[in-house]
Amino acid sequence: MNNTPKVPIPTLERLATYFRYLADLRSMAVETISSTEVEKQTGINAAQFRKDLSYFGEFGKPGVGYNIVDLQNRIAQILRIDRDQHVIVLGAGNLGSALAGYPGLREQGFNIVAVFDASEQKIGQSLFGLAVKDIARLREENNRLQARIAVIAVPASAAQGVADLAVASGVRALMNFAPTILKVPDKIVVRNVSFLQELAVLSYHLTADAQK
Amino acid sequence: MNNTPKVPIPTLERLATYFRYLADLRSMAVETISSTEVEKQTGINAAQFRKDLSYFGEFGKPGVGYNIVDLQNRIAQILRIDRDQHVIVLGAGNLGSALAGYPGLREQGFNIVAVFDASEQKIGQSLFGLAVKDIARLREENNRLQARIAVIAVPASAAQGVADLAVASGVRALMNFAPTILKVPDKIVVRNVSFLQELAVLSYHLTADAQK
Repeated sequence: MNNTPKVPIPTLERLATYFRYLADLRSMAVETISSTEVEKQTGINAAQFRKDLSYFGEFGKPGVGYNIVDLQNRIAQILRIDRDQHVIVLGAGNLGSALAGYPGLREQGFNIVAVFDASEQKIGQSLFGLAVKDIARLREENNRLQARIAVIAVPASAAQGVADLAVASGVRALMNFAPTILKVPDKIVVRNVSFLQELAVLSYHLTADAQK
Repeated sequence: MNNTPKVPIPTLERLATYFRYLADLRSMAVETISSTEVEKQTGINAAQFRKDLSYFGEFGKPGVGYNIVDLQNRIAQILRIDRDQHVIVLGAGNLGSALAGYPGLREQGFNIVAVFDASEQKIGQSLFGLAVKDIARLREENNRLQARIAVIAVPASAAQGVADLAVASGVRALMNFAPTILKVPDKIVVRNVSFLQELAVLSYHLTADAQK
């Protein structure tokens, strides 16, 4: 059972932004932070930050700011990342490799436990200390690994098949990098990470410049 | 001059989501779409979708739905991606390589024109038809390329230096994949793409399952 109220997606995203930012600060041995500094660094305004936190009870002291370790732990608790999560990466191409070697995930409780691919050239090779496994064996492998989060880093044409296989293998949450819309059962959560989308948002802000 | 009202970031993000989704549908030769279908595919509710669009004038016909080509063109116009943008990728590691080869960007007006790296082993090599260039020459190269968007795909320790160099070279918008907070002048737009953040959002939705 969980006592935290259900958190809307935009709030979750902001909390995850704070979390990531606090992780950075922590690695730099910073101890406290003010909401004004948060605004400066994350672009989320100070009032919103205070509002997001107050939703979950009292944090911070007036004039002293927020203790970074406490705040990060509390956000981890809200986001339910206060326990280790096993993560599998599906696809051992450039993107899958980048993810397998992405620094700082394990320290934050995300443990990439295996990488899967369909290519015979890749299966059995080592990626940042992880053996690349045959995706045809995902179901039995994940029976042992018990990963609930999978990252889809395969070409768009293969993504739906890989997503279906992941769901059949017990995965409950997908981070999808393939530029395609996945169809999954209602209980499955999908986050689409789209370079096109990010570029589109950036592009919007450029026009004043481009129109000169 | 631009007549479009200033669009808040969350609206922009949703518009970029629709845009990406419409690009997918268009590649599948779908012609019209209803707001209910949009909700089903993007997770953004139908009322929100209609509200986002009505903000920019009339779209769609009751009972007929939205013409996909028209809608995508209109969103492209709002997002100001109705012209070609030059994009440079900074870092030719796994992630930079994945981005250089990411499909569908050019068709949507984002033209990756060069990849830069500091490693002598990588400079001069070819990545998806693009020669990897020496990042030390970014300023003079970009004088010619005129890219206003740069993707930062270097390790965290190198990211700030690379960002400074990009800004000095005329870049106005950064997509940052390095797990670090960049300090840039106010006029520069940064989008941080954080795997940690995405994993954190996914993780939140898993607890019911994890607690069984």
